[in-house]
Amino acid sequence: MSDSTGALDSATAVLRDAILGGQRRALARAITLVESTRGDHRKRAGALLAALLPATGRAIRIGISGPPGVGKSTFIEAFGGFLTGLGHQLAVLAIDPSSARSGGSILGDKTRMEALARNPRAYIRPSPSGGTLGGVARRTREALLLVEAAGFDVVIIETVGVGQSETAVADMVDLFLLLAQPASGDDLQGIKRGIMELADLVVVTKADGALVPAANRAAADLRLALHLMRPKTPAWRPQVLTASAVAGAGLDQVWGAIQGFRAAMAGAGELDQLRRGQASRALWREVQDGLADALRRHPGVAALAAQLEARVSAGEITPGVAAERLLERFLGPGGA
Amino acid sequence: MSDSTGALDSATAVLRDAILGGQRRALARAITLVESTRGDHRKRAGALLAALLPATGRAIRIGISGPPGVGKSTFIEAFGGFLTGLGHQLAVLAIDPSSARSGGSILGDKTRMEALARNPRAYIRPSPSGGTLGGVARRTREALLLVEAAGFDVVIIETVGVGQSETAVADMVDLFLLLAQPASGDDLQGIKRGIMELADLVVVTKADGALVPAANRAAADLRLALHLMRPKTPAWRPQVLTASAVAGAGLDQVWGAIQGFRAAMAGAGELDQLRRGQASRALWREVQDGLADALRRHPGVAALAAQLEARVSAGEITPGVAAERLLERFLGPGGA
Repeated sequence: MSDSTGALDSATAVLRDAILGGQRRALARAITLVESTRGDHRKRAGALLAALLPATGRAIRIGISGPPGVGKSTFIEAFGGFLTGLGHQLAVLAIDPSSARSGGSILGDKTRMEALARNPRAYIRPSPSGGTLGGVARRTREALLLVEAAGFDVVIIETVGVGQSETAVADMVDLFLLLAQPASGDDLQGIKRGIMELADLVVVTKADGALVPAANRAAADLRLALHLMRPKTPAWRPQVLTASAVAGAGLDQVWGAIQGFRAAMAGAGELDQLRRGQASRALWREVQDGLADALRRHPGVAALAAQLEARVSAGEITPGVAAERLLERFLGPGGA
Repeated sequence: MSDSTGALDSATAVLRDAILGGQRRALARAITLVESTRGDHRKRAGALLAALLPATGRAIRIGISGPPGVGKSTFIEAFGGFLTGLGHQLAVLAIDPSSARSGGSILGDKTRMEALARNPRAYIRPSPSGGTLGGVARRTREALLLVEAAGFDVVIIETVGVGQSETAVADMVDLFLLLAQPASGDDLQGIKRGIMELADLVVVTKADGALVPAANRAAADLRLALHLMRPKTPAWRPQVLTASAVAGAGLDQVWGAIQGFRAAMAGAGELDQLRRGQASRALWREVQDGLADALRRHPGVAALAAQLEARVSAGEITPGVAAERLLERFLGPGGA
């Protein structure tokens, strides 16, 4: 199936070598390429990715999320500085399906994390502008592979927590880190439903000065909450830590926990299994998204779909009947 | 679009009238009809459901789940007896994608809830045997409409908690009730990840005798855990109660909370909105499932799919490229 990998044209081969050489400019160009939806760009991106895949998979992939105001950028800036201080090469990708931001966002994301943006061991890539979550997720997954090929050994994927973006991120990283507020159970944490379930590690931020007691109370509350739930994997029981970006406190414990997680998962052979599962789920999600798009683009289906959806929500026909009629229109009598 | 509702043949018209008359035999026959996957049965089921839809939607729809050993059947048996004692007509449906049980399950489910099975105001329908979750969910949603048309004003949909069945149930009911163990945070509750997020009401079971203190501790823990999460809707803050099926204690509070939930949601106009949303989501889920099935049945696609999935999990090609190639094979060069 040589066509699947595609023979590399010379320009793409040059791009591949430049990325393997860790050249930032080439990396940026390649990420722009995988972000493109143009057919010829997609083909070239596919060939490039296929050529780079052997050089991917070596980084620890960390997803980071948290409610608004939790101090995500501040934490990533501080934690990133800590990691590069240890000699790591850090890439930070953002996933934001809501974002209609263009090139301007580069400035946006970089000013959010000024020091990290100036840090030679760090690479910050702003979120690709808008589109469906499926599209954004695919582009982010491919950008993740590119930064790995470029030699970054720690990759942070930040989610702004729009729609199902946390679930998408959790399904493309090794470890999902949830940031929480130093607020006790009496005041609502505002953690989005379904998110705590994804967490392998919870870090209560702003644990400095007068907020230390509140941060410790919040950590205890969160430990209890997590304790009520069945662990995601037998190899790892989610942990709750406190940290302070300002005081730089607790960052070493956070990194220690992440390494502990990775060791436990790798030891149990679960890390590899996790990543294989993520890849095949991604395949089927993309197939489903593609099918849904094709259906919506199909002449005659779009109009019928709108009409049927209205009648379904009005309770005039059942979803089952409406679905059968849409499929029949799209696939033809035989197909449905 | 008369073809969508379909002109009722006389047999179906008779069936419709018998169901509207509350005849159990006819109801059972109709549920068997919607469970059938035969094309002509599906058509007839669609026509029957369309004819009955005006008589649906009057029941309060309650989903019930909980970890193994929590005493689900015992609770439903006691709560069901309490409800019929108040004069309600109760239907209990079970959703179990894992179930390969045939007619034998009728006995199975009925012996699980002996008193309820003998109760003239209650109707217990065993879970349809196996199949994909999508198929089971569709059949359960349609059975729910049938029992509503037959005049049952309280419908309980029980999930055995296999795979994503809780999520499917939560998206077809008004209120999702989670049963929990009288165990404190020190011993793991074993609540499946992602389930607490679905709960509108949590009931700690076995709150009698020596277990009362443990039940109260568990209730406090669960209240705290729920308190950390953003509410599903502004109209309702999830509640945690304790109950004892054996002692019949707390059942009135559970029913009171359910009525309170319904009043709050109806008052805020959210109940109608919730149900409309559920119906259109169901439509698109069924369309997606149907498309995925058609793709897997497509000659030449199945083989390619297996091959590509293997290479994707082996990290030889990216999910994006594999998805594009599958879609191209299925829809043709133009479609993808």
